[in-house]
Amino acid sequence: MKVGFVGLGLMGSGMAGALLRAGHEVTVWNRSPARAEPLAAQGATVAPDLAALAAGEEIVFTSLPDDAALEEVVLGPHGLVANLARGAIHVGTSTIGTAMARRLEEAHAQAGQVYVSAPVFGRPDVAAKGELAVVAAGPGAALERLAPAFAAIGRMTQVMGEDPQQANLAKLAGNFLIASVIESLGEALALVAKGGVDQQAYLDLLTSTLFSAPVYRTYGQLIVDRAYEPAGFALPLGAKDVRLALAAGEELKVPLPIGSLLRDRLMTMIATEGEAKDWSSLGELAKIQSGQ
Amino acid sequence: MKVGFVGLGLMGSGMAGALLRAGHEVTVWNRSPARAEPLAAQGATVAPDLAALAAGEEIVFTSLPDDAALEEVVLGPHGLVANLARGAIHVGTSTIGTAMARRLEEAHAQAGQVYVSAPVFGRPDVAAKGELAVVAAGPGAALERLAPAFAAIGRMTQVMGEDPQQANLAKLAGNFLIASVIESLGEALALVAKGGVDQQAYLDLLTSTLFSAPVYRTYGQLIVDRAYEPAGFALPLGAKDVRLALAAGEELKVPLPIGSLLRDRLMTMIATEGEAKDWSSLGELAKIQSGQ
Amino acid sequence: MKVGFVGLGLMGSGMAGALLRAGHEVTVWNRSPARAEPLAAQGATVAPDLAALAAGEEIVFTSLPDDAALEEVVLGPHGLVANLARGAIHVGTSTIGTAMARRLEEAHAQAGQVYVSAPVFGRPDVAAKGELAVVAAGPGAALERLAPAFAAIGRMTQVMGEDPQQANLAKLAGNFLIASVIESLGEALALVAKGGVDQQAYLDLLTSTLFSAPVYRTYGQLIVDRAYEPAGFALPLGAKDVRLALAAGEELKVPLPIGSLLRDRLMTMIATEGEAKDWSSLGELAKIQSGQ
Amino acid sequence: MKVGFVGLGLMGSGMAGALLRAGHEVTVWNRSPARAEPLAAQGATVAPDLAALAAGEEIVFTSLPDDAALEEVVLGPHGLVANLARGAIHVGTSTIGTAMARRLEEAHAQAGQVYVSAPVFGRPDVAAKGELAVVAAGPGAALERLAPAFAAIGRMTQVMGEDPQQANLAKLAGNFLIASVIESLGEALALVAKGGVDQQAYLDLLTSTLFSAPVYRTYGQLIVDRAYEPAGFALPLGAKDVRLALAAGEELKVPLPIGSLLRDRLMTMIATEGEAKDWSSLGELAKIQSGQ
Repeated sequence: MKVGFVGLGLMGSGMAGALLRAGHEVTVWNRSPARAEPLAAQGATVAPDLAALAAGEEIVFTSLPDDAALEEVVLGPHGLVANLARGAIHVGTSTIGTAMARRLEEAHAQAGQVYVSAPVFGRPDVAAKGELAVVAAGPGAALERLAPAFAAIGRMTQVMGEDPQQANLAKLAGNFLIASVIESLGEALALVAKGGVDQQAYLDLLTSTLFSAPVYRTYGQLIVDRAYEPAGFALPLGAKDVRLALAAGEELKVPLPIGSLLRDRLMTMIATEGEAKDWSSLGELAKIQSGQ
Repeated sequence: MKVGFVGLGLMGSGMAGALLRAGHEVTVWNRSPARAEPLAAQGATVAPDLAALAAGEEIVFTSLPDDAALEEVVLGPHGLVANLARGAIHVGTSTIGTAMARRLEEAHAQAGQVYVSAPVFGRPDVAAKGELAVVAAGPGAALERLAPAFAAIGRMTQVMGEDPQQANLAKLAGNFLIASVIESLGEALALVAKGGVDQQAYLDLLTSTLFSAPVYRTYGQLIVDRAYEPAGFALPLGAKDVRLALAAGEELKVPLPIGSLLRDRLMTMIATEGEAKDWSSLGELAKIQSGQ
Repeated sequence: MKVGFVGLGLMGSGMAGALLRAGHEVTVWNRSPARAEPLAAQGATVAPDLAALAAGEEIVFTSLPDDAALEEVVLGPHGLVANLARGAIHVGTSTIGTAMARRLEEAHAQAGQVYVSAPVFGRPDVAAKGELAVVAAGPGAALERLAPAFAAIGRMTQVMGEDPQQANLAKLAGNFLIASVIESLGEALALVAKGGVDQQAYLDLLTSTLFSAPVYRTYGQLIVDRAYEPAGFALPLGAKDVRLALAAGEELKVPLPIGSLLRDRLMTMIATEGEAKDWSSLGELAKIQSGQ
Repeated sequence: MKVGFVGLGLMGSGMAGALLRAGHEVTVWNRSPARAEPLAAQGATVAPDLAALAAGEEIVFTSLPDDAALEEVVLGPHGLVANLARGAIHVGTSTIGTAMARRLEEAHAQAGQVYVSAPVFGRPDVAAKGELAVVAAGPGAALERLAPAFAAIGRMTQVMGEDPQQANLAKLAGNFLIASVIESLGEALALVAKGGVDQQAYLDLLTSTLFSAPVYRTYGQLIVDRAYEPAGFALPLGAKDVRLALAAGEELKVPLPIGSLLRDRLMTMIATEGEAKDWSSLGELAKIQSGQ
């Protein structure tokens, strides 16, 4: 199938590459053009500008870093809403808040277009292999049409509902759960370590029994090794996602006590340790607070 | 090898049976004698009383429900300390606090005996198959001597240190982590459910990606199904273990913010919903508090 | 002195009346004109519309219920920024967030006008008597010029700094402290009550010793009497102010653990008990959660 | 009336002195005899030993630092239970847990004696002036008999019930409320200070409005002045009282979320800053965690 792709950061480039490798016809655009070159070499067409890409595609994926970028690309004068044809589909893969997702959905709807949220689980190396987990929500017909594209970028697609926000809610709840694992592991490791137990042995015990999941292996090892820099996902990004989960909870009137605790503790890390470290360094705070 | 086994509840019977099947010579004793019969049928010797068992064995395992039972069996006039020979080993498999473990260690040491803590991860069905995870701590020589027995009851043994308390600390931290999973899953499910997402679909997403561990599958399914009765491990038991983890943190001066939150929320469940439900019902509280 | 006053709710009417009684020349405007009549009877001039009021005054007070009203009155086409003369002063007395205060300050500055924040402590009856506590921040010269007006509406004025936001920060921190008193009293009363202690006797003990302040007397009595309706300040308003305090903390990178706890507990009350009750009903939650 | 007084620390000496000044006949005993001398100079009789004091008095006050001292003085072989006559009254003024109070009550009851709990609010200088607030609970007849003694040591007596534990519960809840004030003030001051507001001006605002109580004046000033040493009431003592309040809540099944937060934060202070500082230094933690 024929798709446009806007936003060629690490995640976006990985997804666009996977689409190409699966035989799809991909037109790309990125604010700084240099990032389009490797994809052009793999067979992508490079659009001269955003408006041109939007005007020429019926399906456009975006992978953008934050709300400001998304606002410009989607709602700006040269953006998707202004230039996509009626009936065209915009697939947003960024981790955004539910309020922003609603705004995008409404803007597209007013222009006779369709918005689908499809945030993904997986880091850049997983994106490059086309093995992401795609969490999708939107009108059933649109999701059906998108199935081959999702199959190219992910090893699985899980549909959360017909309302695009539901996919964002699922993704935010997922990131909240990762942060919960980091914090609870940090507390458990601080406890056993101060009692003289070897942390690696303890982590091995956990991950070879009830806790044999990637989330414990990956984040547990980062905490045991104190390998917080360079950051794969920096503290402020983690804090932002927890804040978005709390904001979604606020809209829906769902208190999230662990979410609140994560908010304060991520903020403590940022205020005292700076913004450079990986969010797994939250797992250090219990040690700091216990004088270790 | 030749071992004594005291305490033939579901867990104890499973372990004693596994020891028998592995060819060990096992003498058992239980306060209510009826529970010894199935093991006698499998080849166990039944001791006439606790003192007799203690006097005749060099290695005695205990699997007891609470501190009171342990105190009587170990420190009482007919108990292990009073009747074991010098050099004999007591292996405690119960989930107890670090303060209690220290008391046991000291009492045995004064009598020239050795105390080893070896709490286990796994439910009764796993114990019956001899596939527990054994978390052991104590003097190295004693642990070496116990290796064949541990191999019989568990599919793995992880040594936490030379100080028996270290195994109890590891076990308590493990139960704290399970409770953290229940609570954080409860919050995440309350959030997505109130947003209209199907809980089963969401749990499937989690357990087929980053969270593909038994702890998420087991407890997540119990929460999605609201299958809280009959309890596999009732709320008060969960509250007790969290309290013991907090007490260990208090001794070591390790604050456990999630632990404190779990304490209050388990207590809320007990005060408002009673003591009969499984501790996975903690995962219901976020729904209750969000009006679902 | 000559002042304009926009927003004649309970608080605004009280303040405008106090200004009149102190001999100031007051021109008023309110969206629904009926509320201006009692003040006209006391000698106020009623402006035909907002723009006319703004065009004719050098000092304009606003007392408005929320950000939306403030936005229209200040930033709208017929509003203060568009119609005040250069050099005129806008005094905002509403409890708003620091981000909104910054927006107002910037908009006025671009129009060559001055913005002063002067939120107040005190309920409507206190406002009617001209005995509020005025918390003011803004340029020194403006504050000096406003002194007679502040003296009319309040029994004291405390200056928080030259930056208008500082007054809003102080007010939000104050409301956060009130909510902390409600919650901590609620927990203490739940504890002693479940132990059979008479709550009134306990409250009397507190307020005749270390805790002899209006905040304990007022809110303590409401909790002891369970007098939550009609609301003087409803739960959603309390939740809004706590949220604004948390948002200010987020901007400044100041974690507020009690603030987070208040957020979740106010939300729990709203989700389970509805929006009608006074925010003092937060003091009921500890009793509810302890099964009382 | 005739009373014995055991435990002549700062608080005990103050109370014994006040009893003497009110004309009561006081016999004293203290483990280290030197502390009895100033009271002897004021007219007190010094008992040769604890047993002698107990044997000779019908009413004995104790003011002791901790459970261990209390246990020896009350339950030891030379102590009150063993030596007081039937019908004699022991008045415990220490801040102890409800479980300990129950133990004392039961031990005295078995010996045909009466136990009354009468913890006090007030620091040593207040005790010296006989102006404490006495929080009393016990059998009505005993309280009536004690009225003149309470009138000597306090400016007021508030009765919490017939069960001695109720007075301890009230006292623990009171100390919990003080700690809540310290923590919430610490958060509020961290917030306004990081926003550039002068802390003293802010504290003055609070204490001249809704928060005009000694608890805000005293602890607020200590936090603003960072006057944490020498400690009037050191961090570990504050942590102990919060722990006792949580333990009482645990017995009664009353969750105390702010109590749990205080527990973790006091422990953080102790683990990172040591044990020497006053518990008001808890009000520093929010500043530390926000990088101030």
